[in-house]
Amino acid sequence: MNQQNAPSAAESANGGAAGAAPDRPPAVGMVGAGQLARMTAAAAVGLGISFRVLAAAADDSAAQVSAGAQVGDYRSAADLLAFASGCDVVTFDHEHVPPDALRALVDAGHAIAPPAAALRLTQDKLVMRRRLADLGVPVPWVERVTSQADVEAIADRTDWPVVLKAVSGGYDGRGVWVCRSYAEVAAVLAHGVEVFAEEFVPFERELAVLVARSPSGHGAAYPVVQTVQRDGICHEVLAPAPGLSDYAAEDAIRLGLRLARDLDVVGLLAVELFETERGLVVNELAMRPHNSGHWTIEGARTSQFEQHLRAVLNLPLGAPTLTAPCVAMVNVLGADDPDLYGKLNHVLAADPAVKVQLYGKPVRPGRKVGHVTALGGNMAEVRDRAARAARYLATGSEEP
Amino acid sequence: MNQQNAPSAAESANGGAAGAAPDRPPAVGMVGAGQLARMTAAAAVGLGISFRVLAAAADDSAAQVSAGAQVGDYRSAADLLAFASGCDVVTFDHEHVPPDALRALVDAGHAIAPPAAALRLTQDKLVMRRRLADLGVPVPWVERVTSQADVEAIADRTDWPVVLKAVSGGYDGRGVWVCRSYAEVAAVLAHGVEVFAEEFVPFERELAVLVARSPSGHGAAYPVVQTVQRDGICHEVLAPAPGLSDYAAEDAIRLGLRLARDLDVVGLLAVELFETERGLVVNELAMRPHNSGHWTIEGARTSQFEQHLRAVLNLPLGAPTLTAPCVAMVNVLGADDPDLYGKLNHVLAADPAVKVQLYGKPVRPGRKVGHVTALGGNMAEVRDRAARAARYLATGSEEP
Repeated sequence: MNQQNAPSAAESANGGAAGAAPDRPPAVGMVGAGQLARMTAAAAVGLGISFRVLAAAADDSAAQVSAGAQVGDYRSAADLLAFASGCDVVTFDHEHVPPDALRALVDAGHAIAPPAAALRLTQDKLVMRRRLADLGVPVPWVERVTSQADVEAIADRTDWPVVLKAVSGGYDGRGVWVCRSYAEVAAVLAHGVEVFAEEFVPFERELAVLVARSPSGHGAAYPVVQTVQRDGICHEVLAPAPGLSDYAAEDAIRLGLRLARDLDVVGLLAVELFETERGLVVNELAMRPHNSGHWTIEGARTSQFEQHLRAVLNLPLGAPTLTAPCVAMVNVLGADDPDLYGKLNHVLAADPAVKVQLYGKPVRPGRKVGHVTALGGNMAEVRDRAARAARYLATGSEEP
Repeated sequence: MNQQNAPSAAESANGGAAGAAPDRPPAVGMVGAGQLARMTAAAAVGLGISFRVLAAAADDSAAQVSAGAQVGDYRSAADLLAFASGCDVVTFDHEHVPPDALRALVDAGHAIAPPAAALRLTQDKLVMRRRLADLGVPVPWVERVTSQADVEAIADRTDWPVVLKAVSGGYDGRGVWVCRSYAEVAAVLAHGVEVFAEEFVPFERELAVLVARSPSGHGAAYPVVQTVQRDGICHEVLAPAPGLSDYAAEDAIRLGLRLARDLDVVGLLAVELFETERGLVVNELAMRPHNSGHWTIEGARTSQFEQHLRAVLNLPLGAPTLTAPCVAMVNVLGADDPDLYGKLNHVLAADPAVKVQLYGKPVRPGRKVGHVTALGGNMAEVRDRAARAARYLATGSEEP
């Protein structure tokens, strides 16, 4: 799982590693202060580095738990530059920093990880799809659409459903719509968000592979996991993916490491995959800690958060090996009861070995507000334990 | 390893649990901002609580990594009261808060954990020894000494060495002196520190048992560990203690849980033990996260830091079970090179599975500035791995 890739000249030149003054440990700045930055802050403690976040508000998830959080707008080059001035390397807990603001950071001489060109691919899904197709990676076909007529032409050719995706962002927290009628297409287009049509891929299940890459070209891959989405939101992650053949697992890991190298990633790269009759198809990419890797906090020798920090600091990557035969992570999605903490007592008493992470975020229906991880020797059992705890935290009920 | 003790009336009345307003998670304040508070801060992240430290300086180890650190003097009742006003429960990373300052907190209605009466035992070793003797716990005999003549009388009776201990604190970072001559005794007494003489216990090795107790009387014990001291400083911890009989392990755990109950501890209780020909003898007690429990961050399902927080919050305690058959922790003691971080590269490259915790403290010779943990199936191997990494971090050399 742990591979050395010799860096190409381009990769070496790219840099992005932190060069700290010799008399103090380096400072890593993370733009964004959601739960990904929050868990990265916890991972930074042991490395003895300085870790800072650029938060939208002083009570953001990560700002609650890190020293010297800076409040600012990630869309503002001025705010980013002010933030970066105290950092040896700047990284990101989301992909929404505008390209011109990223450019301003680079032009001012700041090291950013991943590099701007790599990050750009996660900001425009059409560009990313085309880049992957150029690399010969199996991806769904895509077609830009600007009108109802464009979509109707596709539906006539391929039949329903037609998948529409926002080129970047989306609305109502969603960026993907599986449309089954002209009316549904019209409703999406009515929002005026730039979208494209994508092949509807009939998959058997969804998998994800998470790799890390350092500027020196060192790569490490976590075991391939199965992800279970519900209403387009990651709900469960099972590590390792149950019943996956060694061949398919190696195939996915090879793909992840190769993409990290070819796309010049520094830090983490999460690759969401469809397992289909014709093999693995790449669905989405992310270049940051990812929901499909939360299980690594307790379930891998090196958590994804520590791994991301090691990579952006150009420290040697840590062992990505499992700490137990089976690991299950289940997200806690907000329900009606705003008080998560009040339900912790029951959950911890019911299962003293379950691990809970709460994000310190106000509860809103459907919002990711925490997750639960269980570890053990039997996947059905750990999945059930994590699901029970997550369900109770969300709803206050044991009922599925 | 996980026991339920029904709370006595006295224990129930004692309280110490956090009563948070129902609309927000509780806030835990820790007095002191050394490495114990630093690692507790990391553990607090997942529980979704608010965690604050009272630091002596803004760049203290824990203040570097926690939001809203307050700077103040732990000896000042005014500073403690100001700190406690934002906390639902106040706990401690050291035992040096003066009794009258603790009293001021309690009188003002603040919940403190452990309770003042329990904490008092860790502040006066003579009082603690006598309390343990009253409980029928095997302890070395002790005798208050105020003059050279007192010590000489003891040496005449018992022969050398004579162990002198400071009643509280000490000097030059030490509180124990094993004296082998009148001259050595005179040198200790010359410092004017209040001391007592203690039986020199010829032990086979040192062990430690770490238990947690919540206000509701719930107790949990970690596996018994072997500790290896060097120059009076904890150097290595091996979990579980190699070759310890089940009988002796159960004996130690029973002792730890019983002491936690009888001394009315809330939070962690670390019991340092001598293994001798006549059985286990209690050496020292601490009521906070303890060096002998650092291995639990990766080596136990629930770290001692999370466990302490759960206990003081009266949350159900977590599983204290091992995550690997063998765990070794080795302290990094400062040497000549002030740059710890610069040596991290080599250590992480040499062993991708070793876990390093750096404390963010300026390096001074002999000072604890970090620790390394290794886990695996063979104690000799994990001990060697942890020792190599710790040695290199300290000295920049692979040589023992």
